[in-house]
Amino acid sequence: MKKMTASEFRQLPSISSGQNHNQNVDETVLPIISDVQKNGDDALFRLTEKLDGVSLSTLYVTEEEFQQAESSMSDSFQTALKTARQNLETFHAGQLEKSWFMNPHNGMTLGQKVTPIKRVGVYIPGGKASYPSSVLMNIIPAKLAGVEKITITTPPDDQGNINPHVLAAAKEAGVDTVCKVGGAQAIAALAYGTESIEPVSKIVGPGNAYVARTKKWVYGDVDIDMIAGPSEICIVADETANPAFAAADLLSQAEHDEQAKPLLVTPDWDVADAIQKEISNQMEKLDRKAIIRESLNQNGHIIVTETLAEALDTANRIAPEHLQLMIRDPFANMASIVNAGAIFLGNYSPEALGDYTAGPNHTLPTSGTAMFSSPLGVYDFVKKSSIIHYDKNALSQASQATMSLAEAEGLTAHARAIQIRKDEGNAPTND
Amino acid sequence: MKKMTASEFRQLPSISSGQNHNQNVDETVLPIISDVQKNGDDALFRLTEKLDGVSLSTLYVTEEEFQQAESSMSDSFQTALKTARQNLETFHAGQLEKSWFMNPHNGMTLGQKVTPIKRVGVYIPGGKASYPSSVLMNIIPAKLAGVEKITITTPPDDQGNINPHVLAAAKEAGVDTVCKVGGAQAIAALAYGTESIEPVSKIVGPGNAYVARTKKWVYGDVDIDMIAGPSEICIVADETANPAFAAADLLSQAEHDEQAKPLLVTPDWDVADAIQKEISNQMEKLDRKAIIRESLNQNGHIIVTETLAEALDTANRIAPEHLQLMIRDPFANMASIVNAGAIFLGNYSPEALGDYTAGPNHTLPTSGTAMFSSPLGVYDFVKKSSIIHYDKNALSQASQATMSLAEAEGLTAHARAIQIRKDEGNAPTND
Repeated sequence: MKKMTASEFRQLPSISSGQNHNQNVDETVLPIISDVQKNGDDALFRLTEKLDGVSLSTLYVTEEEFQQAESSMSDSFQTALKTARQNLETFHAGQLEKSWFMNPHNGMTLGQKVTPIKRVGVYIPGGKASYPSSVLMNIIPAKLAGVEKITITTPPDDQGNINPHVLAAAKEAGVDTVCKVGGAQAIAALAYGTESIEPVSKIVGPGNAYVARTKKWVYGDVDIDMIAGPSEICIVADETANPAFAAADLLSQAEHDEQAKPLLVTPDWDVADAIQKEISNQMEKLDRKAIIRESLNQNGHIIVTETLAEALDTANRIAPEHLQLMIRDPFANMASIVNAGAIFLGNYSPEALGDYTAGPNHTLPTSGTAMFSSPLGVYDFVKKSSIIHYDKNALSQASQATMSLAEAEGLTAHARAIQIRKDEGNAPTND
Repeated sequence: MKKMTASEFRQLPSISSGQNHNQNVDETVLPIISDVQKNGDDALFRLTEKLDGVSLSTLYVTEEEFQQAESSMSDSFQTALKTARQNLETFHAGQLEKSWFMNPHNGMTLGQKVTPIKRVGVYIPGGKASYPSSVLMNIIPAKLAGVEKITITTPPDDQGNINPHVLAAAKEAGVDTVCKVGGAQAIAALAYGTESIEPVSKIVGPGNAYVARTKKWVYGDVDIDMIAGPSEICIVADETANPAFAAADLLSQAEHDEQAKPLLVTPDWDVADAIQKEISNQMEKLDRKAIIRESLNQNGHIIVTETLAEALDTANRIAPEHLQLMIRDPFANMASIVNAGAIFLGNYSPEALGDYTAGPNHTLPTSGTAMFSSPLGVYDFVKKSSIIHYDKNALSQASQATMSLAEAEGLTAHARAIQIRKDEGNAPTND
């Protein structure tokens, strides 16, 4: 980790990763999308054989496979899943939105009706890693929103199996449709449907570059959660920060992958030195130290500012996915934070807690997109309809303004749809 | 307008317009995006000369131009703008969201902080038409959300002028940065910034195919509102519907453009006949009857169902942008509606009212996307940050579950970030 001043940091190329315009990934994913749209399940079986190395007879995970997975889990893992689920449910229940209406004048009812999205797809990556936490994080808000049907797609291994932790988490979250299909073909199947997979209206969940690119292509036909980039942490620390804790948190972020970005911002050179020293001490003991070293060397920065205010301003410019305020009075200083996916306060609220059990979602805006987007939440699984009722008298009062605007836009049939109601006089008609 | 049963209607190709994968539009817009990213204002001036036929010396609308525009407006238009603005503000104020927190257990504070997006761009189409209503609809929710800086981009005419109705609406809505640039180049400038145009975090507003495609490309680097398709109306009518009103509303929808989709759903053949007759009678008198005839012939349908329940179900399958319930007890029947951008109740709540002055937004999900998306609202101009605070004791209680999940995912440095806090014993450290 290199130390630098805030102004040196601002000279660096932007942390935001520009949308990749190159065609390499598209050359792979566009034919797959067409193939799935045209050939349905046939394409899925064929692509799964080709890309995942297994010939399947059904895409569905069976009840027996679920049971095997659950029985193979340790008690402590099952307890952990349950704790995480409960904490997630408690927090996300706070996001439930109500339908509402208002009566601004007599004869007028305006409102907003909130309804769940009917069918949702959740992509869970496969490969060597296993992501039971992503299963919970994506499914619990959808369930609370009232989504009727949730389909998980995840690639099988070359024996046709799905990671048992993922299946146990799906069961704990209350989902029983898990399909053994991954990559671009899974996203296309969720977006457009096949014989086995009902089309959904929204696709959420993490994935590799092919999955992310396919989500961008189908966006518009269906909704998607976001196009996620590499994970970041930004720790703002002062002399009240425990250097060993801060170091452990930067290292935990760095272990995700080589592109992960661990950033430390502090107004105090001694704090910077102390944390840096702890990083060196702790790193050698860690299992994934090769990845960690790459992440720290390539993407890690220690930014030393003049003041705490400049440190907080730097954090806002970064708009980090995870922001830890390891400073005196973190609650009061949170007032200055405007751009962050999640804000962790104090010495005992590490990102790792938020990744698993704290309650809030771990699906967060990356690469500076916290400037305009939000953690995944219940609000991502509902949509709103406006409600408009004017009675005859209320319409009459609004008619002149409405016709004036319609005529200014040259839309005279719009004006006439108002006029015809005024012209009606006193003929009896329902409001 | 052809009459058919609900089951015949379901045989028709889907109303949803698939995302266009063809490269024609991309061949135009991708080079423009690169040009603007590389050459900034130079590209904007050059492209505006080439595509809009005018050589500008500044991109900004001047205060003098604003004043000229305002003084050229009729009193009735100014009054109409003010009425629309007030009604929009009243309704959209109902969408304001609060930051909140909860304390699920001692030592735990969880919450959600709501902050406005800092800078937003609004695209307003130019050409022969003028869209002052779109200016109000896009800007008022952004203003209420607390957006600091709103930039309108709109193409100039070949004299370098902007439609005065648009400028008057921008002033009424409280925006004073209007830039004379349109098309893909405007979207690229808003997304990536130039010397004259500050980059924004979100781009909203309607536009042609090039604008829509460019929005899809920059999506991810910035947020966008939606990729809008042709406009639709679906009227569900029974014998309480005034046939002349229903016909006028279908015709008003049809005048937008040839792709507009006017749909009537009714359980009553007599109602269908009466409305069809009114359409024929009224059409001849309308200014835009050529467009209207095309829209009705190409995209208009009258769907006759067995029952009202089937009519409402058909509306849900269509998921229309605008849904008018011209039926007995529209409020009670609204309970059955799950997919619609806006729901207009009764005989005196025509779509034209909602397009201009009713209060709710007229930027609505099209082409069936009401299954997963919402009207433009204040919620589109804010974003959320999760708040997490655990004290030492609360973290200790959560540590076993957190470490168990981290270890199941092979992320041992995450587990260690928890463990190191448990190992600390009673050393004095701030929470």
